[in-house]
Amino acid sequence: MPFNSSIKVDKGKTLLDAARKADIPIASVCGGKGKCGKCKVKILSKVDFLGVTKREKGLVTEKELTEGMRLACQTKIYGDMIIEVPEESIVRGFVKDKAGTKRQIFPQPVVCLYPIEISIPSFSDNESDVERIKRELKKMHNVSVSRIDPFCFKAGPLILRKEKWKVNVVVSWDEEILHIKPKNDKELYGVAMDIGITTIGAYLLNLKDACHLASGSTLNPQIKFGEDIMSRIGYIRENGIKGLMDMNKTLIKGLNALIDDMCRKASISKKDIFEVTVVGNTVMHHIFLNINPSSLGLSPFTPFLSSSITLKARDLGIKINPAGNVYVLPVKGGFVGADNIGVVLALKPYLSDEDCLIIDIGTNGEIVAGNKDRLVCASCATGPALEGAHVKHGMRADIGAIEKVTIDPKTKEVEYKVMGDKKPKGICGSGVIDVVSELFKARIIDSSGRFKKDINSKRLRNTYGMMEFVIEWAEHTATGRDITITQEDIRNVQFAKASIYAGAKILLRHLNIDRPSKIMLAGAFGNYIDVKNAYVLGMFPYATVSQITAVGNAAGEGAIFALLNRKEREEAEKIARKIEYVELTLYKGFQEEFLDALYIPHRKDPFPDIDDLLKDYQ
Amino acid sequence: MPFNSSIKVDKGKTLLDAARKADIPIASVCGGKGKCGKCKVKILSKVDFLGVTKREKGLVTEKELTEGMRLACQTKIYGDMIIEVPEESIVRGFVKDKAGTKRQIFPQPVVCLYPIEISIPSFSDNESDVERIKRELKKMHNVSVSRIDPFCFKAGPLILRKEKWKVNVVVSWDEEILHIKPKNDKELYGVAMDIGITTIGAYLLNLKDACHLASGSTLNPQIKFGEDIMSRIGYIRENGIKGLMDMNKTLIKGLNALIDDMCRKASISKKDIFEVTVVGNTVMHHIFLNINPSSLGLSPFTPFLSSSITLKARDLGIKINPAGNVYVLPVKGGFVGADNIGVVLALKPYLSDEDCLIIDIGTNGEIVAGNKDRLVCASCATGPALEGAHVKHGMRADIGAIEKVTIDPKTKEVEYKVMGDKKPKGICGSGVIDVVSELFKARIIDSSGRFKKDINSKRLRNTYGMMEFVIEWAEHTATGRDITITQEDIRNVQFAKASIYAGAKILLRHLNIDRPSKIMLAGAFGNYIDVKNAYVLGMFPYATVSQITAVGNAAGEGAIFALLNRKEREEAEKIARKIEYVELTLYKGFQEEFLDALYIPHRKDPFPDIDDLLKDYQ
Repeated sequence: MPFNSSIKVDKGKTLLDAARKADIPIASVCGGKGKCGKCKVKILSKVDFLGVTKREKGLVTEKELTEGMRLACQTKIYGDMIIEVPEESIVRGFVKDKAGTKRQIFPQPVVCLYPIEISIPSFSDNESDVERIKRELKKMHNVSVSRIDPFCFKAGPLILRKEKWKVNVVVSWDEEILHIKPKNDKELYGVAMDIGITTIGAYLLNLKDACHLASGSTLNPQIKFGEDIMSRIGYIRENGIKGLMDMNKTLIKGLNALIDDMCRKASISKKDIFEVTVVGNTVMHHIFLNINPSSLGLSPFTPFLSSSITLKARDLGIKINPAGNVYVLPVKGGFVGADNIGVVLALKPYLSDEDCLIIDIGTNGEIVAGNKDRLVCASCATGPALEGAHVKHGMRADIGAIEKVTIDPKTKEVEYKVMGDKKPKGICGSGVIDVVSELFKARIIDSSGRFKKDINSKRLRNTYGMMEFVIEWAEHTATGRDITITQEDIRNVQFAKASIYAGAKILLRHLNIDRPSKIMLAGAFGNYIDVKNAYVLGMFPYATVSQITAVGNAAGEGAIFALLNRKEREEAEKIARKIEYVELTLYKGFQEEFLDALYIPHRKDPFPDIDDLLKDYQ
Repeated sequence: MPFNSSIKVDKGKTLLDAARKADIPIASVCGGKGKCGKCKVKILSKVDFLGVTKREKGLVTEKELTEGMRLACQTKIYGDMIIEVPEESIVRGFVKDKAGTKRQIFPQPVVCLYPIEISIPSFSDNESDVERIKRELKKMHNVSVSRIDPFCFKAGPLILRKEKWKVNVVVSWDEEILHIKPKNDKELYGVAMDIGITTIGAYLLNLKDACHLASGSTLNPQIKFGEDIMSRIGYIRENGIKGLMDMNKTLIKGLNALIDDMCRKASISKKDIFEVTVVGNTVMHHIFLNINPSSLGLSPFTPFLSSSITLKARDLGIKINPAGNVYVLPVKGGFVGADNIGVVLALKPYLSDEDCLIIDIGTNGEIVAGNKDRLVCASCATGPALEGAHVKHGMRADIGAIEKVTIDPKTKEVEYKVMGDKKPKGICGSGVIDVVSELFKARIIDSSGRFKKDINSKRLRNTYGMMEFVIEWAEHTATGRDITITQEDIRNVQFAKASIYAGAKILLRHLNIDRPSKIMLAGAFGNYIDVKNAYVLGMFPYATVSQITAVGNAAGEGAIFALLNRKEREEAEKIARKIEYVELTLYKGFQEEFLDALYIPHRKDPFPDIDDLLKDYQ
């Protein structure tokens, strides 16, 4: 208890052995030597073989002993027992992302560090160093390695002898020796990376206790080859292998700079990073792996590689310990990438009794719907309007971007907030959603998205035949030009929100789900937008505002999960196999849904909270 | 028949399927399509289900049909059958070494090339390219791959599309995709290498038919760091990691030059070499793998790594296809290296009913004794005299070396043969053995190896207190100096031969073998020496001359075996585990044996052929 886990072990094994076998993360700082007293457990069943060791007497109080508390490492098993692990004896790692959400994960990384002491070679025991290491790993840690990375050859023999045969061995998957460390060097780190089209996020973690040490993010330096996916594929198609190599090298260089940067922040050496996990959409995935992604730009958008893959960091040019591995999560298809698998891994709708709807909005929108029985996914072409691109005065969420907007329904005057409290340069995605929503609430546009003719405000004007609404006048902007939102901008936002709405609705219909129980907005975008304004626009089907939550960078979190726990990798594989892809453009009824959803909030569907949200604007 | 192999298969399978399952190498050029007619077999048993297919009618004559000849690929099995595979339908590879010995090996390499045609991707079959390749490999070749090397990512998607989905896939161990080749490119090569202290030998083979395409040899370029093992270890000990890297880089550069050279000779591209196998003594093995070999220079001479290892060629700097692998045979210990395992693999004493004694003489002498029940090995410090080193006028077997010598027992005059028919520069190993043996036969030295006092020849003289015998006078030599053999040279040869003799005798005694049935001399040395002269010196215990054969570069041949047949690798592992190492210097009675063996031919042991060999010299 409280894991509801039962396990059978040989007589004479300790409770700590049993817990390890059952993957129950009992704290054990001293490694089971009875020195730290961290592995206290409570024996719930009455057993006749329960003694008290000397070590326990020093570490467990009299009162605790009478309550059945013992050290797991000191208590041997000679019959059935029911054990409770108190909260303070459980090792929990916490994953904390930028948005401050917190999900628990038990650290059980693929890469582990095993302290061993091997025998001194002699004529009577003259097996090779590596064989003696293998023997000791088996004996002391029950780990049977079969391979060794050649990058520990150069220094290995010297370290063993200098350290007088007491060393720490870094092992991957309990199978391959990656490194031999001096006995006092126990550093073991990992990096999780989320390669977005625009932004790359990275997290540096301690693999032993799952502690976050640093994080970093940077613009994807590939941006110089084009802002969106199609322009990057185009560059590769035009420039062939050289184009791919340019793109790949640029990306790898950026990733290495990010790793260096995090190492500096955390004061660690990158030689002590032994594992990297990576998520990204299918094109980023391909370019990262140096795979020509041209096929992803043409129907039927077939990826070259879809299963997850583990490669040596050195083969990819990733500068961590050269023996370290890079694990790339699987992709589902051309439009459902490793980032989406990461989102699903982090949010775990496949464990949920409730019907979940996950919306991850970036340059494309990816939608996942389902529960523990069935999962479906789709990709919808939202266009970049929701990221502030393809909007006349749009910009990325950066210093100088208008990120929040309110419009007085009476005066039609505008208030706004600028990132970094500077003079505004433009409007970012969350600001764009606010503007369109506020224009609707202030009845400046109608439910078809068109500017009304009868508005009495100098902010609304016709410029070269295009209606536009002025957010800020030139004299107050950093650009010296009026910042406006045009009829076309509004149209683009309508297209974006309609494609999300219709996509989500089709997926729910495909699953015979009437209404989702919860809607999760993944991605940085989800954190910044005003959910109520998005709701008023009609972005989410069949929900109340309270059912919608922003869950932060779930894709990056999925990469962290895969980094910290090996079982999450099996999950990732299962997700990629299990999740069904729905091609929306070929789905019967999608077009009608899309057209209905262009209206604000919708042409047909009733919105439970809409009257409440609009009541102040009557 | 004639393999005496029986196999059970499901009904409806073809004889070719059965043969493949039983590892019987029936020729099948068309891959079992009934087009080439190469897989003719004779059905010996009367069966009632034997028809004749249309394809067979075109390829098998009427007469053959009545004799029971059929195409293995066309004949389906519906009951018990006895099949004879005629000689012309068996695929055999031949291994031919420098000495011209020929041993058969069936080609079943680790790396294979599988032609496939994969489905065109569509919205209804939109699995990734790699998944579709996997599917087809399973369907067409029953091969289940699980991994793919990243070095085929860059061009892979383009080749697939350019070749219209018909490609050849290079697969290692039926498990990892190494490369995707255009449908008309079926090149698949491998290299076997024998890294000696002085010489490196290499062989280029076609992995599909086991054909030898080229071979090459070169001086080990490490020779600039020292001629023997201890001086090379010394260089590394003095210069640390940099010393190791110098030594490793020099070696790798030499190996790459050798590969380039062979590729030129055979007009093939090194990108089509996908596998390299390597043997070498333990120090060469370590330096090749970039392992610090310092521990091999100190008692108890423990290697860092002993098991066999497969690494990516790129990780070692070996320039073949970057996805290709390098397999290094296992070592047994500090003095029993991968070269010795290679020798045992090639000569297969572990399959022999007879008691074998294998002597491989290089800078050290390695001895293996045993039969199918038990194998033991030992290393004896012969010193380099038998290679022509540490001999006053000794030299390597090279142009200008005196390689054969006779001395007239009456006149004490000398005849000799020089390599390359030039003026002599010195004496190589085989010449040194001849000289000492001839000196003994001509009664110029006595059985203790000492020059007799009463010899009437101006060739025998005392120079600065050291007796020496002149082989050739200065006026006829390339050096302008007399070429002589000194008392100390003779002493060194005695030490060398005594240590081989005593080592072999101890191993035989250890196995309770009275007399070996055959003695095999491995290594280039074995090919060049005059066996009778070595016999007179007393180098081989308990044998007649006719029992002694030179078997050529068996170590290199072992590397070829490991290259051509995957099962030989399991054998190599088994050998390394099974063979017992005997530390001669610690063995009771070794010292006495050694002292007795210093005498020519021996102080105690009777030599069956000695009188016969000496009779002309009476």
